[in-house]
Amino acid sequence: MDLVSLDDVRAAADDIAGTVVRTPLLPTPWDGELWLKPESLQPVGSFKLRGATHAVARLDPATRPRGVVTHSSGNHGQALAYAARAAGIPCTVVVPEGAPPVKVDRIRALGAEVVLVPPTRRLAEAERIAADTGAALVPPFDDRRIIAGQGTVGLEILADLPDVDVVLVPVGGGGLSSGVATAVKALRPSTAVIGVEPELAADARDSLAVGEVVVWEVERTYRSSADGLRTHLSELTLAHLRERLDGIVTVTEEEIRSAMGRLGREARLVVEPSGAVAVAARLFRRDELPSGRTVAVVTGGNVDPAVLASALA
Amino acid sequence: MDLVSLDDVRAAADDIAGTVVRTPLLPTPWDGELWLKPESLQPVGSFKLRGATHAVARLDPATRPRGVVTHSSGNHGQALAYAARAAGIPCTVVVPEGAPPVKVDRIRALGAEVVLVPPTRRLAEAERIAADTGAALVPPFDDRRIIAGQGTVGLEILADLPDVDVVLVPVGGGGLSSGVATAVKALRPSTAVIGVEPELAADARDSLAVGEVVVWEVERTYRSSADGLRTHLSELTLAHLRERLDGIVTVTEEEIRSAMGRLGREARLVVEPSGAVAVAARLFRRDELPSGRTVAVVTGGNVDPAVLASALA
Repeated sequence: MDLVSLDDVRAAADDIAGTVVRTPLLPTPWDGELWLKPESLQPVGSFKLRGATHAVARLDPATRPRGVVTHSSGNHGQALAYAARAAGIPCTVVVPEGAPPVKVDRIRALGAEVVLVPPTRRLAEAERIAADTGAALVPPFDDRRIIAGQGTVGLEILADLPDVDVVLVPVGGGGLSSGVATAVKALRPSTAVIGVEPELAADARDSLAVGEVVVWEVERTYRSSADGLRTHLSELTLAHLRERLDGIVTVTEEEIRSAMGRLGREARLVVEPSGAVAVAARLFRRDELPSGRTVAVVTGGNVDPAVLASALA
Repeated sequence: MDLVSLDDVRAAADDIAGTVVRTPLLPTPWDGELWLKPESLQPVGSFKLRGATHAVARLDPATRPRGVVTHSSGNHGQALAYAARAAGIPCTVVVPEGAPPVKVDRIRALGAEVVLVPPTRRLAEAERIAADTGAALVPPFDDRRIIAGQGTVGLEILADLPDVDVVLVPVGGGGLSSGVATAVKALRPSTAVIGVEPELAADARDSLAVGEVVVWEVERTYRSSADGLRTHLSELTLAHLRERLDGIVTVTEEEIRSAMGRLGREARLVVEPSGAVAVAARLFRRDELPSGRTVAVVTGGNVDPAVLASALA
């Protein structure tokens, strides 16, 4: 399989400058060898803006006026709506009926059209819209443009901390982890890139163990608070992770919650459960990780205020 | 009076690089002409690290091994402790008996010695320690080194948004506002630099109106939740603000609280009441402000988790 290259990630970095925030590395007051990469500070609250912006930048001129469509009601949906607005093209987001009204409102506020369908019809509806209107379907992670865009996180980490020893990155569908591992291992092979998953959604660990995509049923992954990490890998992301990821660890729900509280109180960051797993790994799974100068990617901050308040207490 | 110059601020920028985080400007999703300068992301949670790091860098070689001393139990105390540790010199912080144990613990965790005294004896005790040990007394704002250090916030704003029209900056003792106005007005005189105060601690507004330092009694300012802004100006900071500030507005406690909630939910930032006043001004006092591309300085994030949780609800 043809994997994304360092050059692809570098090209993505040029494409996204101006729309995506160049986030700093933040030293933590409680751990002299831990830095945070706070992607929660992107204007839509997550790293997803990188891949979405890159995918929009790479549309061919004929497709461009017809815009983009996707079927994620979560962070990717908001990110694509934002990227499309920034580029001045139309965007449609297919959302399952029953999605929280606050999410639907946010996507609409970004100027995208929202189409509500029964949950099982999401993908089919997005494909139908793409076929009918000529809009480009932009999936949340199973896409080379998305992987290259998310990989810019890795380029920035190495630019700011060239002698980093360990990069901890959450694994959901694997777009971010594939991109970050691509950039980091190409530029500095001695740096370990370690994936982090919730124990209650450890499908990527299982997939890497057996060498093929393992799917955990939604009834099982739904128990994790880390809603952004319930997704399973694709063939494309698994191929990247098999080749480039150095290992994977899991964290418990209590550890995620504790990391969210620590990040709020001591790093002054509002972080969603999915965004806290890498920090949780450094706090509670240190014996399973390589030692040295470590960066934890804090992927997003779109959290229910009540959940945050409870973690802060 | 000899005021701090642009060259002083530029020299400070060289001195603090490496210890202080180069914070980005964050676009806000709710206002297309508003950017945030999130100083809450500094490792001690406030911009105070800039001035403290600069003051430490400027110690003369004879004083250096004797270290520094201050009498602030708040953000400046933590900032000076951090800066001293980074420079490998001793630090003593005089703290009033009855200060919250969490603050005392944080200062100690940064390696500083804490000396507890009755509140009225704070300054005298710090001066006694300086005289006895030869340590340099580093005040929180009434100091040219501190003003120059805080002014680096202004340099960074103009580097990232060269055509900014308005900079909104909280005013407590006036160190930050003096420094920011110094940098911004020297580099781009057409940009308006506007101070923001709580209505319940509007001593700087009164001082500017009459042209001399007006002191509001502590019984009065204590009613404001913005504990970092209860301080009055000094002759030095007043002289800077009279010369360089374009105006000053005040915000209510309810507006501060609302801005904190907005920042937590939509900018994913944990912000203390003092840190939210500039955003509150843009949200609720827009008719009193010049229009155009605006940067609000978010000064700090050291907030009681219960206060934050209440603002988020």
